[in-house]
Amino acid sequence: MDIAKELQRKIDLKTKPLGSLGKLEQIALKIGLIQNTLSPELRNPTHLVFAGDHGLADEGVSPYPKEVTYQMVMNFLAGGAAINVFCRQNGINLKVVDAGVDHEFPLSSNLIHAKIANGTKSILREPAMSLELCRKAIERGKEIINKEFEAGCNIVSFGEMGIGNTSAASLLLHKYTGNSIEDCTGRGAGHDDEGMKKKISILKESSLKYNVTEHLDILATFGGFEIAMMCGAMLQVKKNGMIILVDGFITTSALLAAYKFDNSIVENCIFCHFSQEKGHKIMLDYLGVEALVDLNMRLGEGTGAAVTYPLIKSAVLFLNEMASFESAGVSGSEKLKVKS
Amino acid sequence: MDIAKELQRKIDLKTKPLGSLGKLEQIALKIGLIQNTLSPELRNPTHLVFAGDHGLADEGVSPYPKEVTYQMVMNFLAGGAAINVFCRQNGINLKVVDAGVDHEFPLSSNLIHAKIANGTKSILREPAMSLELCRKAIERGKEIINKEFEAGCNIVSFGEMGIGNTSAASLLLHKYTGNSIEDCTGRGAGHDDEGMKKKISILKESSLKYNVTEHLDILATFGGFEIAMMCGAMLQVKKNGMIILVDGFITTSALLAAYKFDNSIVENCIFCHFSQEKGHKIMLDYLGVEALVDLNMRLGEGTGAAVTYPLIKSAVLFLNEMASFESAGVSGSEKLKVKS
Repeated sequence: MDIAKELQRKIDLKTKPLGSLGKLEQIALKIGLIQNTLSPELRNPTHLVFAGDHGLADEGVSPYPKEVTYQMVMNFLAGGAAINVFCRQNGINLKVVDAGVDHEFPLSSNLIHAKIANGTKSILREPAMSLELCRKAIERGKEIINKEFEAGCNIVSFGEMGIGNTSAASLLLHKYTGNSIEDCTGRGAGHDDEGMKKKISILKESSLKYNVTEHLDILATFGGFEIAMMCGAMLQVKKNGMIILVDGFITTSALLAAYKFDNSIVENCIFCHFSQEKGHKIMLDYLGVEALVDLNMRLGEGTGAAVTYPLIKSAVLFLNEMASFESAGVSGSEKLKVKS
Repeated sequence: MDIAKELQRKIDLKTKPLGSLGKLEQIALKIGLIQNTLSPELRNPTHLVFAGDHGLADEGVSPYPKEVTYQMVMNFLAGGAAINVFCRQNGINLKVVDAGVDHEFPLSSNLIHAKIANGTKSILREPAMSLELCRKAIERGKEIINKEFEAGCNIVSFGEMGIGNTSAASLLLHKYTGNSIEDCTGRGAGHDDEGMKKKISILKESSLKYNVTEHLDILATFGGFEIAMMCGAMLQVKKNGMIILVDGFITTSALLAAYKFDNSIVENCIFCHFSQEKGHKIMLDYLGVEALVDLNMRLGEGTGAAVTYPLIKSAVLFLNEMASFESAGVSGSEKLKVKS
């Protein structure tokens, strides 16, 4: 009997109507398959927030000023942001990565110093980053994951911070899937109609400026350091057989890039939250996946993954801890009984 | 300034785009209003599973035999059911109430002995219970809540166990809202098409047999002891200003009965999970509410509430613990800033 069948059988023999734990059963099966075991475990869950600045932020694509990126990093380090609250609540190690913030941070035990450059270039003028810096960001992401892996972590949740990065994500989505800029562009941190018009116009101009088709070129031209570093990190999570928790528009744009390098990466992904940001649905459809919940959130930082982590844990716990009909001495329905 | 406005202002000044925590913001606001404070607290969260047997179970409305009710109660007491796993995980006190199981249980510290009778009567022959026993069940529910309230609990989550109780819930839904038996009846623990036909036919016959319109009469005629006791418990939770966590088809049928006694009860309710059981949507629409998540679950026991409890906690924690733009020294967008 193969592991998928054995897992399904273990799930079906639990004291509950067949299939009645719905999406939790799918997650239990998926995690069992990733870990190739009937008794999976979530060890040292770690949430990484990758932060980076975007040249395009100076062109008016966001209603927030660029300095909010480093101010929010300081907020993360002080423990006051939404992601801090949710990681503390749910027993998730939170680490913040300076992938390319336009600010010099003091040494801090909680910050991973991985700055590639002080923000990307404005793509209205030149590519966001060179191929060399893009590769460097990807490699740095892999190294960060290996360090967590060596420390015993087997599940990584992803988040980001970067004023202007919904623009980068929209352009990546546009280039990787061929959907129109209009369909790929949302309100980000809260554009009004006028702001949206301007954002779309800037993104169209940027898109037309570069004729790139190779996936690394696309990532370098339109991405951000935090996105490229997440892409590398995700690839390494997959390589190490760990679980990837994905939520949100920007995080999923990084996964889209990773998917171009390795289609099989989705096998290790759990899509936690369906973002309110327009374009996220296109991403999920493109990858052929569905998100676990929809809480109408669009905050970023990976908050959708952090708040839904307990549901992932519920899936693993029911598989390991629930009694079976036999062990509990509960009569199954003859009609519903699983065939041996 | 009134408390609703003050709460909204506190939410809006947190370091996040306006409205970006979606449903968590609505829950934070709701709990603040219930507790009439800007700093709400969840104290001694308690999950009560009300168990009862149904005379109709002997007529073939469920694919499971009736003894599964007491066997599952034993499973709860031994810690092996889904609800045990999820309550342990999420720090929720789990208590099981014998509201009317057709079995004599040994004294157990974890079981609340509140048996009204050994199961209801088969409504194909006579009303499920007398008005007197129905009132007794409601009163017993109120007493149970007052005991939890005195012990410092301010949030109660509801679950149930009773082979045949989706039939009772369907009949209550039919009688309270006027929707057809077909629309109100689902597959319960897992009927096939033939089983469904039989269930619907039995429910139609039962429905036609009694001409009752008063809400207590309806509850007594078609309900169950666990449903009537939940109804009383919910009314008392509301009266004490506590929070009611509702999920599932049967639990919501009890709330529907409670709603007939006191329309304002929905002010204190959070609807946690949208059940796969047909008819739940009609209930939520009738009450004018939406459920927080949809995990395709239909297990019962209140598992939908127990697994989503961390999301309720997230809502309270962000309100209490997140920094404001001012306290964190983060620049707000002029366009997005909250007006003083």
